[in-house]
Amino acid sequence: MEGDPPLRLRVFDLNCWAIRYLSKRRQERVRLIGDKLRQEGFDLVLLQEVWSEQDYSDLKAKLGGCYPFSHYFRSGVFGSGLCVFSRFPILDTLLYQYSLNGYPYMLQHGDWFCGKSVGLVIIKISGIVFNVYVTHLHAEYCREKDAYLPHRLVQAWELAQFIRHTSKAADVVLLGGDLNMHPEDVGIRLLRGWTGLRDAFAEATRFEGCEDGCTLVPNNCFTVKTELLPFPLGIRIDYILYKAISSFTVKCEELKTTTGTAPGMDIPFSDHEAVMATLHIRRQGQAAGANLGTAEPMLVDVVTEARTEVGVGLRAAQRQRYSTGRMAVLALLLLLLQAAAALGTLAGLAAEQPFPKLSFSLLAFLAIGVLLLATGLHLFHTIEVKMLQGTEEQMRMALRALQERP
Amino acid sequence: MEGDPPLRLRVFDLNCWAIRYLSKRRQERVRLIGDKLRQEGFDLVLLQEVWSEQDYSDLKAKLGGCYPFSHYFRSGVFGSGLCVFSRFPILDTLLYQYSLNGYPYMLQHGDWFCGKSVGLVIIKISGIVFNVYVTHLHAEYCREKDAYLPHRLVQAWELAQFIRHTSKAADVVLLGGDLNMHPEDVGIRLLRGWTGLRDAFAEATRFEGCEDGCTLVPNNCFTVKTELLPFPLGIRIDYILYKAISSFTVKCEELKTTTGTAPGMDIPFSDHEAVMATLHIRRQGQAAGANLGTAEPMLVDVVTEARTEVGVGLRAAQRQRYSTGRMAVLALLLLLLQAAAALGTLAGLAAEQPFPKLSFSLLAFLAIGVLLLATGLHLFHTIEVKMLQGTEEQMRMALRALQERP
Repeated sequence: MEGDPPLRLRVFDLNCWAIRYLSKRRQERVRLIGDKLRQEGFDLVLLQEVWSEQDYSDLKAKLGGCYPFSHYFRSGVFGSGLCVFSRFPILDTLLYQYSLNGYPYMLQHGDWFCGKSVGLVIIKISGIVFNVYVTHLHAEYCREKDAYLPHRLVQAWELAQFIRHTSKAADVVLLGGDLNMHPEDVGIRLLRGWTGLRDAFAEATRFEGCEDGCTLVPNNCFTVKTELLPFPLGIRIDYILYKAISSFTVKCEELKTTTGTAPGMDIPFSDHEAVMATLHIRRQGQAAGANLGTAEPMLVDVVTEARTEVGVGLRAAQRQRYSTGRMAVLALLLLLLQAAAALGTLAGLAAEQPFPKLSFSLLAFLAIGVLLLATGLHLFHTIEVKMLQGTEEQMRMALRALQERP
Repeated sequence: MEGDPPLRLRVFDLNCWAIRYLSKRRQERVRLIGDKLRQEGFDLVLLQEVWSEQDYSDLKAKLGGCYPFSHYFRSGVFGSGLCVFSRFPILDTLLYQYSLNGYPYMLQHGDWFCGKSVGLVIIKISGIVFNVYVTHLHAEYCREKDAYLPHRLVQAWELAQFIRHTSKAADVVLLGGDLNMHPEDVGIRLLRGWTGLRDAFAEATRFEGCEDGCTLVPNNCFTVKTELLPFPLGIRIDYILYKAISSFTVKCEELKTTTGTAPGMDIPFSDHEAVMATLHIRRQGQAAGANLGTAEPMLVDVVTEARTEVGVGLRAAQRQRYSTGRMAVLALLLLLLQAAAALGTLAGLAAEQPFPKLSFSLLAFLAIGVLLLATGLHLFHTIEVKMLQGTEEQMRMALRALQERP
């Protein structure tokens, strides 16, 4: 067994930016992506932001010959956007939807409507069980004042926990996706530390592509240049991560990214660059054991840092819950007052109607509107508080477990 | 090892019916439950419908001596209601929220607001790894015309998938909870068949309690007698299920239920009866392997039946999505018409205002209200359609896998 030739696995990962009616030259780009995938013949393709099931069906029809197996993960209003194409049979799938994902009233950001999730597909190649995860975390819209950081951290934590709990029988774990975190951000340190996953870019023997492995670069014609001003080289937020769990080792032989435009074309595949890894998987004599990725004292620091940020989010959510609750109560009081005035008039207590009918009704409708809206928001922020508390509690448990270890 | 004395594990499961302001004599009953748990000294306690965190904290304070380890699962507006008390350290936890859980506008049923979930706690006793699951599925309000059946089936499927994917490294799997399904219902056959879990009541060497193991019985003073009219003995909807995965065997030595009133008290613990199992876990020589619970041809029938029911739910959801969408479009048209009329009047095209101002404004407000409501419902039913489609697709995959097996 130990002398077996290593298994070579070529993995393709891309955030396709395929939002119907919004993404520029979407259909043309999806066709290009399909051409590239057919031509290159990867083993495994992990795509994000394929929001339209029609695009998925088109890709599936086009790629049926070289990738006979595929799965589209449905969730949220527009779906999860996640799909997988594979040369090898998909044995099983599972979807885990993150408990927090932005705010429904932030329509301009829209993440909430996408049902951000992590999808798992299980694949067996030459007797090796691969747990392959694909995900897309909440976007970062303003790095200086990132209101979504606590939500993204909850997602990173849930992603890590989901991977840990579901991969125990796997030989190799692969994760691909748009994590919306820079390599040094606390969320990715948490994810890597808590799961033991390794970053293909950092581990690659050979690298070819954008400088520093960036996947959102200024010379891609679809990126928003002003957002990248503080980062002249661009940023790296799309990853392929991996680890071996049982008696296997994984090495990243080569990592590539696209560099702004698709080869021989005048447009890029997407506003993100694709990440392509060639992995070598080899059976080794003794079991490696499922280790945490980061030395434990460092991991304690990372979990503590993440927990602090979640705590900041928790206090903000508690304030929001309080102010929306107060707003609902005020609207209710106004309505009651109006009802009392109206009843008084009807019963002939007041000499005459004190307000013009029109303004009176408009005010009542306004109060009903505010009451409904504020109640809805209050419920939403109550859920947010619960989930942030739950994550903080889990992190506290994790810290205790880390500190109690001999 | 094989000669080791078996491990004896006493498990307590109860739907506590502890809804603040709604459940009768809640605080008194929670005290009674705490007394019973302290007095009996079970190894593992799985509770549902502990909706108030204060009740959980009270129980935790009271039970700290005999159950030093506990976990409360937070989710939804009121929490998940799920908690676990344990004599043994809880090593890790994970919560999976079901993707469908009734309708937010069915306020009188309220399940939607509870964030129904399955909670997992991992416990190690004498070197044996236990994956312990606690859950509560959507209630059944009308057995003849059960509008929630597709949602409950999606939950049963997600529960089964979650257990299968997370329990691969466990030695023993335990599931306790209020499944809201009768023993012969398709959902429970699906759950048992797809996970291999065995029903403690059916397997118990000794049984003591309500006839047929019922857990919702007419002689419990809190049950609604009219609902139980078709079932003179009551119904069995609370379960303890188990299986051994690796080289262990589990036997249920004894199963007990409470029988209407708490011993020596004038009131029951809850409107449900508690289920108490004594399990024997023994190490055996050869690994048992993770088998499916039901013979495969039968399992094919069960999955097909479940898939048909999910399909029925899918078509109903598609109809709802269509009708709410149409309603939103009509409201929008009405608003546009009104806006045109108002603009016409302002521009002096019409000789005079054709409607009285008051009815005109009221109509506009009504149209805005209907537009918002119908849009919200349309989005909700779109998500419902996606999740039902996703489950149907997963079941189709499962059927293919079952049929392709040699």
